[in-house]
Amino acid sequence: MPEISTKGLKMPESPIRKLVPYAEDAKKRGIDVIHLNIGQPDIKTPQVALDAVRNHSIDVLAYSRTEGSETYREKIAGYYAKHHISVGAKDIIVTTGGSEALSFVMGTIADAENEVIIPEPFYANYNGFATASGVKVVPIVSDIDKNFALPPIAAFEEKITPQTKAILICNPGNPTGYLYEKEELEQLAALVKKHNLFLVADEVYREFSYDGSVHHSILTFPGLEEHAIIVDSVSKRYSMCGARIGCLVSRNKNVIATALKFAQARLSPPTFAQMASEAALDTPESYFREVKEEYVERRNLLVEALEKISGVKVARPKGAFYCVAELPIEDADAFAQWLLETFDLNGITVKVAPAAGFYATPGLGKNQIRIAYVLEKEQLLQAVEILKSGLEIFAAK
Amino acid sequence: MPEISTKGLKMPESPIRKLVPYAEDAKKRGIDVIHLNIGQPDIKTPQVALDAVRNHSIDVLAYSRTEGSETYREKIAGYYAKHHISVGAKDIIVTTGGSEALSFVMGTIADAENEVIIPEPFYANYNGFATASGVKVVPIVSDIDKNFALPPIAAFEEKITPQTKAILICNPGNPTGYLYEKEELEQLAALVKKHNLFLVADEVYREFSYDGSVHHSILTFPGLEEHAIIVDSVSKRYSMCGARIGCLVSRNKNVIATALKFAQARLSPPTFAQMASEAALDTPESYFREVKEEYVERRNLLVEALEKISGVKVARPKGAFYCVAELPIEDADAFAQWLLETFDLNGITVKVAPAAGFYATPGLGKNQIRIAYVLEKEQLLQAVEILKSGLEIFAAK
Repeated sequence: MPEISTKGLKMPESPIRKLVPYAEDAKKRGIDVIHLNIGQPDIKTPQVALDAVRNHSIDVLAYSRTEGSETYREKIAGYYAKHHISVGAKDIIVTTGGSEALSFVMGTIADAENEVIIPEPFYANYNGFATASGVKVVPIVSDIDKNFALPPIAAFEEKITPQTKAILICNPGNPTGYLYEKEELEQLAALVKKHNLFLVADEVYREFSYDGSVHHSILTFPGLEEHAIIVDSVSKRYSMCGARIGCLVSRNKNVIATALKFAQARLSPPTFAQMASEAALDTPESYFREVKEEYVERRNLLVEALEKISGVKVARPKGAFYCVAELPIEDADAFAQWLLETFDLNGITVKVAPAAGFYATPGLGKNQIRIAYVLEKEQLLQAVEILKSGLEIFAAK
Repeated sequence: MPEISTKGLKMPESPIRKLVPYAEDAKKRGIDVIHLNIGQPDIKTPQVALDAVRNHSIDVLAYSRTEGSETYREKIAGYYAKHHISVGAKDIIVTTGGSEALSFVMGTIADAENEVIIPEPFYANYNGFATASGVKVVPIVSDIDKNFALPPIAAFEEKITPQTKAILICNPGNPTGYLYEKEELEQLAALVKKHNLFLVADEVYREFSYDGSVHHSILTFPGLEEHAIIVDSVSKRYSMCGARIGCLVSRNKNVIATALKFAQARLSPPTFAQMASEAALDTPESYFREVKEEYVERRNLLVEALEKISGVKVARPKGAFYCVAELPIEDADAFAQWLLETFDLNGITVKVAPAAGFYATPGLGKNQIRIAYVLEKEQLLQAVEILKSGLEIFAAK
């Protein structure tokens, strides 16, 4: 039998996916499973986006432009202008989800054996895209006791080698929910300028910044024009995860020209999804106000309920819709599996994402889980009740 | 300024794209441009596919399953059964176009510095996906005088090294239009078994096999179960290039399990496009009959007209909707550019794809062009007239 590539063998399995068979078995046993593990919002997609596709008048579903249509990119530039980010259509490549933007970024800025520094815990698929490109992830641990704030800048500088090509952050963070302060970003900006690195920011949760705090895009920092690359997506912003539309944004012309060559190989982003995404830009501001209010209420309720459980520590999220909690157990992987395999409270159990999968350093985060608060408040409270009961029994074992 | 990766610098530019600015300039001068250069069919997308999207009842546009929905994959397996290809849903991963399937295949079977043997001329983006994966393309030239039939199998065996992981073919071929004979495929099958290689076949033009000849899928050859990987797509089959849906098919469980890890990193294929593609499987047989008839008529007319031009040699295509023609000039790149920059016949000119971009060996195919017969007959004839006049004047220069 011909052999799979070494790279293929190294590709990480999704940390969420591992639990799928256990959840399926639970359902077969008649147990209801509340999914706290996945960032699939229950929020309705804006009507204007759904209608655009419903009213399409396409006869021949043709390739679109490789970089996305001119009108869509112009409108995206207009969206950024509203967020005080000054870019033009020429600085934007429309991609098949933020995922493809990440993949293009890796290919554009790093060769095999190059290194990208990422504060951990981080979005697990960064690892996948790095591995697929042969790039090495160099993690720097951030601290749950500091709500996963940026680690001291000296910790970054220490890790910089001749192989280092970029620092990658997610702001606000998945899984941490941390929203970086302006001063933290200024420190990163100074560091990448000093060492001539790229600064890549995954800003797909830009709108989900809470408690009156302001999101600062790396593209608003002066002098960072040649260094800054944004990864963006419509998935969470408009609850359109299934569209698979995102974009890569940079004012560095070489970055755009090179990423475009990767884009040309795959021809074009999906046409229907672009129609929906372009229309979504006309979503009224009231939509975001309501969605944000809803997430803030859910977060407050979730964090408060979790903190009432003895021995549980929660990093208070100021953005996105995730929170990481430390549990009074040793092995969250075993606990998450046990919840699905053995446990239920009145016929219901929960599926959580063990946080170890969001760390690159082996052994870290083993007693942490990530919870996505993308469910209705009542269900969130019910889920926390189940977690609490589960923890009591699991800890007593 | 931080540096672009070596890989990024090496990424090939699309051979079709190079001429875009010249075509735009021609249009600015008021010249009409007939596009013979791109495989974007003018054929209508099946109504059933367009309607499926028009009638969607989605409220939350959620992620689909990473490998594509169970029902869609079951239906794809049913489609293959009709083509005497025996696979199940478990052997299929739905991808974002055939492009993504190619990218997953490269990652799954080859590491950086590994080699994939491909008969040339070949679909130019194979080079892009290979370069993005750090994989080396080893070309074996096929002969226009033999209609680009499979080169002697000894030529393949000669090129096999410890780095060789696969042989990749396109059947029927883009840009050649060649449809491989059963005996040719049997030779390839024996070779990959002997040397323990993968055999990857891009079969996206399966339905477009003409003159009563039969398309043989590599998945129908006994003993090839662990070696064969099919790349497929709805783009050309249903004139749905903009959907961006394809699939990767293999009975090799390790291939599917590994490709699935690459798929997990990018989460899921686009939802609307999957709806359209699933519905497209209900396209009546009459659609294909009509489309095939139309292409055969176009091909006959095109080849006949081209062969009447003095000094032009045409490889007779038996499948797909491309044909490669050798012109009585030295440099088709210069000719193609000149057609757009300088020439017109009654205010109209043509854009052709210089074939050198479909060869990996430098210097080959320089006097050849690829023509896609995806236009109405009248326009094709007009285009050939323009080519003929252009050739006379260009050759006299």
